[in-house]
Amino acid sequence: MEHKISTKKINDLAQRLYPICRSITGNGVRDTLKIINEHIDLKIHEVPSGTKVLDWEIPLEWNIRDAYIMDASGNRVVDFKKHNLHILNYSEPIHQKMNLADLKENLHTLPDYPDLIPYKTSYYNRTWGFCLSENQFKGLQDGWYDVVIDSDLSKGSLTYAEFFIPGKYNAEILFSTHICHPSLANDNLSGIIVQTFLGQLLNKQDSLNYSYRLLFIPGTIGAITWLAKNDSAINNIKHGLVISGVGDTGNFTYKKSRRENTIIDKTVEYVLSSNYENFTIENFSPYGYDERQYCSPGYNLPMGRLSRTPYGTYYQYHTSADNLSFISSSSLQETINIILEIVNILENNACYLNENPKGEPQLGRRGIYGAMGGYGGRKELEMAILWILNQSDGNHDLLSVAQKSNISFRVIMKATEILLKQGLIKLANK
Amino acid sequence: MEHKISTKKINDLAQRLYPICRSITGNGVRDTLKIINEHIDLKIHEVPSGTKVLDWEIPLEWNIRDAYIMDASGNRVVDFKKHNLHILNYSEPIHQKMNLADLKENLHTLPDYPDLIPYKTSYYNRTWGFCLSENQFKGLQDGWYDVVIDSDLSKGSLTYAEFFIPGKYNAEILFSTHICHPSLANDNLSGIIVQTFLGQLLNKQDSLNYSYRLLFIPGTIGAITWLAKNDSAINNIKHGLVISGVGDTGNFTYKKSRRENTIIDKTVEYVLSSNYENFTIENFSPYGYDERQYCSPGYNLPMGRLSRTPYGTYYQYHTSADNLSFISSSSLQETINIILEIVNILENNACYLNENPKGEPQLGRRGIYGAMGGYGGRKELEMAILWILNQSDGNHDLLSVAQKSNISFRVIMKATEILLKQGLIKLANK
Amino acid sequence: MEHKISTKKINDLAQRLYPICRSITGNGVRDTLKIINEHIDLKIHEVPSGTKVLDWEIPLEWNIRDAYIMDASGNRVVDFKKHNLHILNYSEPIHQKMNLADLKENLHTLPDYPDLIPYKTSYYNRTWGFCLSENQFKGLQDGWYDVVIDSDLSKGSLTYAEFFIPGKYNAEILFSTHICHPSLANDNLSGIIVQTFLGQLLNKQDSLNYSYRLLFIPGTIGAITWLAKNDSAINNIKHGLVISGVGDTGNFTYKKSRRENTIIDKTVEYVLSSNYENFTIENFSPYGYDERQYCSPGYNLPMGRLSRTPYGTYYQYHTSADNLSFISSSSLQETINIILEIVNILENNACYLNENPKGEPQLGRRGIYGAMGGYGGRKELEMAILWILNQSDGNHDLLSVAQKSNISFRVIMKATEILLKQGLIKLANK
Repeated sequence: MEHKISTKKINDLAQRLYPICRSITGNGVRDTLKIINEHIDLKIHEVPSGTKVLDWEIPLEWNIRDAYIMDASGNRVVDFKKHNLHILNYSEPIHQKMNLADLKENLHTLPDYPDLIPYKTSYYNRTWGFCLSENQFKGLQDGWYDVVIDSDLSKGSLTYAEFFIPGKYNAEILFSTHICHPSLANDNLSGIIVQTFLGQLLNKQDSLNYSYRLLFIPGTIGAITWLAKNDSAINNIKHGLVISGVGDTGNFTYKKSRRENTIIDKTVEYVLSSNYENFTIENFSPYGYDERQYCSPGYNLPMGRLSRTPYGTYYQYHTSADNLSFISSSSLQETINIILEIVNILENNACYLNENPKGEPQLGRRGIYGAMGGYGGRKELEMAILWILNQSDGNHDLLSVAQKSNISFRVIMKATEILLKQGLIKLANK
Repeated sequence: MEHKISTKKINDLAQRLYPICRSITGNGVRDTLKIINEHIDLKIHEVPSGTKVLDWEIPLEWNIRDAYIMDASGNRVVDFKKHNLHILNYSEPIHQKMNLADLKENLHTLPDYPDLIPYKTSYYNRTWGFCLSENQFKGLQDGWYDVVIDSDLSKGSLTYAEFFIPGKYNAEILFSTHICHPSLANDNLSGIIVQTFLGQLLNKQDSLNYSYRLLFIPGTIGAITWLAKNDSAINNIKHGLVISGVGDTGNFTYKKSRRENTIIDKTVEYVLSSNYENFTIENFSPYGYDERQYCSPGYNLPMGRLSRTPYGTYYQYHTSADNLSFISSSSLQETINIILEIVNILENNACYLNENPKGEPQLGRRGIYGAMGGYGGRKELEMAILWILNQSDGNHDLLSVAQKSNISFRVIMKATEILLKQGLIKLANK
Repeated sequence: MEHKISTKKINDLAQRLYPICRSITGNGVRDTLKIINEHIDLKIHEVPSGTKVLDWEIPLEWNIRDAYIMDASGNRVVDFKKHNLHILNYSEPIHQKMNLADLKENLHTLPDYPDLIPYKTSYYNRTWGFCLSENQFKGLQDGWYDVVIDSDLSKGSLTYAEFFIPGKYNAEILFSTHICHPSLANDNLSGIIVQTFLGQLLNKQDSLNYSYRLLFIPGTIGAITWLAKNDSAINNIKHGLVISGVGDTGNFTYKKSRRENTIIDKTVEYVLSSNYENFTIENFSPYGYDERQYCSPGYNLPMGRLSRTPYGTYYQYHTSADNLSFISSSSLQETINIILEIVNILENNACYLNENPKGEPQLGRRGIYGAMGGYGGRKELEMAILWILNQSDGNHDLLSVAQKSNISFRVIMKATEILLKQGLIKLANK
């Protein structure tokens, strides 16, 4: 597998995607997908407003052209054109003269971080608002203001995209990332970038066992929409990951699937523990990103979430400080590599059956075990061969062999190939 | 639930019950039950001497009027009227002149605690004896003594009582406390007092799900008698507690049921851990109080034992120092409250089914989830709602949800009510 | 059971067996078994060269009479007669003049331990070689040498022995020790000696429940040979131990069976933990001694390995320093005693059924429980009786009762006998 995406490419994609004002519907999402589509061949879906999806309904489509608060002197004291976090996401249109006191009802700030603009949304409750820094807010003079939000909420559609790579098996590995956040870098430009290049690299593989499905969807409503319309694909999902918040320079955090002991849970924990001293494994909880939907009790999919510093634990989270300087292209690159390591194990992990289960087969005769005995130990590859032979009763997968033996999965795979070539093991029917 | 029994009431009951000379049969037990009966409406049972109960037989009834050792000068040097621990409980009658050497054979002291009178019994082996302090013993002069025990052992009955509160379910919660100890405060006036007021408070409840049965029984033979005669009630027992040694000021100790992982075990551990930093959970062992009988392998009931400082680990145990000054009415009050917390969880704990198990239902539309998203966390009640929805697959009870989520059972209950009212969950058929 | 074998007897046997040049076939093995046969009545098997055994084939028989490297002056600079480790075990014959440079290709030393001769073998790959100390090696002068190995590899047989002691049950306990190492004391004269005297002591027992089979076999090929030819005996094996490296003065190490939770695993851990503060329990791994074969997935026998200091972790291992001064006769004696303790538990461990499972039976009436109650604890034997009665539901063996109760197995056994005599328990049909 080619593992390397240059930091330059990562950087370029980040620069292009960052400024777009995304939301759960609208042209921001379409523009984003158009750029991703330059890298991987997306299938883009449009689901009309009003469509019932599970317990939900696709909302009106939201688009925004301009928004500002203008003082009596004609100065735009708050200007959407300067930062698209200035607008409460999904604000209804307004064009009104208001005095400061009334206006303040619809202004959102962060008194504890007086320089930062908060990110706020109101998707399912019609209202409008502006977000600004506490310092900006304090600078507002009494008086009358022109308040303009040139947005519209109208029948349209919700847009999401899939990238599908068929493999040898119908069984699928699902990756999912949310694409609904405006200019926020770690949450979740990072997930979009990682998943885009992951798709590109997977697509270059000669032969994949699993089929891969990569979802680029608006949070919550997007996941719900996809789930509502894809019962048959859902049945094929064997493993999956939600990817979000993977661009900062912190350690990895993996949140387990609801089942907490699936192969994806074990695999991610194994990969993190064999690469890092410091990382965190969290138990499942029903709050967070779209694992909320995938791991709802009616689906209970074997999907966890890969992040770095957990959301909500860093002050930049959901503010204007989650900008391009908060993420690092080498962090993103490293995340891609870690996911490829996870994929590599999922692709190769299996249970085998020892064809000579009684006693050890004579390995020396086959040239795969040193002929000389007595003083001196055995090579790691020889140990891996013994481990696999011993554990190949159809109930122990290679990952568990790697864990028990403390031998790297790479060496376990090499030993597996040797044993397969020698006809000493065969794939178990599982 | 009204939780408060005043310390004055507790104190008054303790004062009245302490002086009575109880045993496993006889008028001491009847007098005790008469006083309890002023608080709760007991059903009193008399089981005739000689009745076969499981592997046992109801013994002769023992009653005692007077007992003393009188020296040549006519002084009562040991006098049952001064402390009813002075008599070996269940002593046969005697009226005899003895010299000191012979008398000593039947005297019991505690050389290590020279001021204390030990509590000793000989229920099933006919003998007699006096218990006295080592200091008293050392003061006895050589010479002849009048030894008088004015007791009788004759055909009569064993007395025990039940307080039964019918609930919505036939399923029962059983509480059991032993009433056979004479003037010993912690063991087990404490259990008698706690169980009496517990009965009073439970009886005031408007609607109880479970039926409650409170047993006031002599230790061992009383439990065996009840078990022998109540096969159908036994089948209804879903949870239970033996209550003993709950009046001292030490931390709580819970001894698990023989099964060690029943709901009562989890519930008590949860309640103690959410109220206290220091408490002890003991594994089951076949020695102790009447859990020995309830948890015998032929019954194996889901019953643990609630105590404070474990019996046998404090020097006052089974001596005259286990008197009213060793127990505290506020400790007793706190024990009652803790048991009511346990009851509250047992009453409300259940498994539910999410009626929209695929994805999350749209909570915002129903007004039970804040409409505004983005910056800022969710309220604990919203988190509780998400937890219950996610775990409501019929296999996770609310107690496990409280434990996993680290949200208090009170908030979990509140969220459950909201979800029930919204029709989003229903009780699982379990 | 008589437990004591004198250290003198142990010493004598060690002295006689140490000098013999054993290998996986040949007269060294036969001479060894002849000496063991003076102690226990062995059944000796000869399996012809060329016989197929599982995936293997019995090799040609190897015998050696003499071997040396002689310099131009006629000095034997390396002499098999001085130490039989000097010869690469299973060397083919050679009689050749060689210069030093060529000779060196076939010389083996330990540069890190310049005084020690390594032990090396080449059973299945035809070659020859000498092992010598690095110091000897450095002293070799340039020039020509007579290289003589007077060995032969010819059709013959592989020799192994069984000692079988029939018990009440067909079910067997298997002990296995390897007999193929030449003058190496801990590995594995120690195993041979322990197993010989263990057999002697077991054979003196009046009545054994299990049948016992003690295998004295060459490593790997011997175990494979026995396994290949004994399907019906294999089916009877209920517990087993590989015994090797048990003569040094280090703490015990027990390596678990592949299943890791069998009765032998629990029993050895129990015996070690009740005798020692320091000992090691290792998980199973597929490298080591003949547990590799017994625990191959097609057999998966409940057999662990008992050792002291683990092989490969002491510098003397597989060198001339593993001589008689490295082992201690009192260590060997202690190992024998520990195995007898293990045997004693296996012999007596069972599940029982309480004949009065409802409530406690009245023990006082039967004279097996102190009549006097109240102040003061119960004797350990009384506690053991309560534990056994409580746990005797057919699912808890005595070993688990000993572990849960923290009462010694000896006392548990005594209590079991009392309860059996009283008719209060009976053996469960398991």
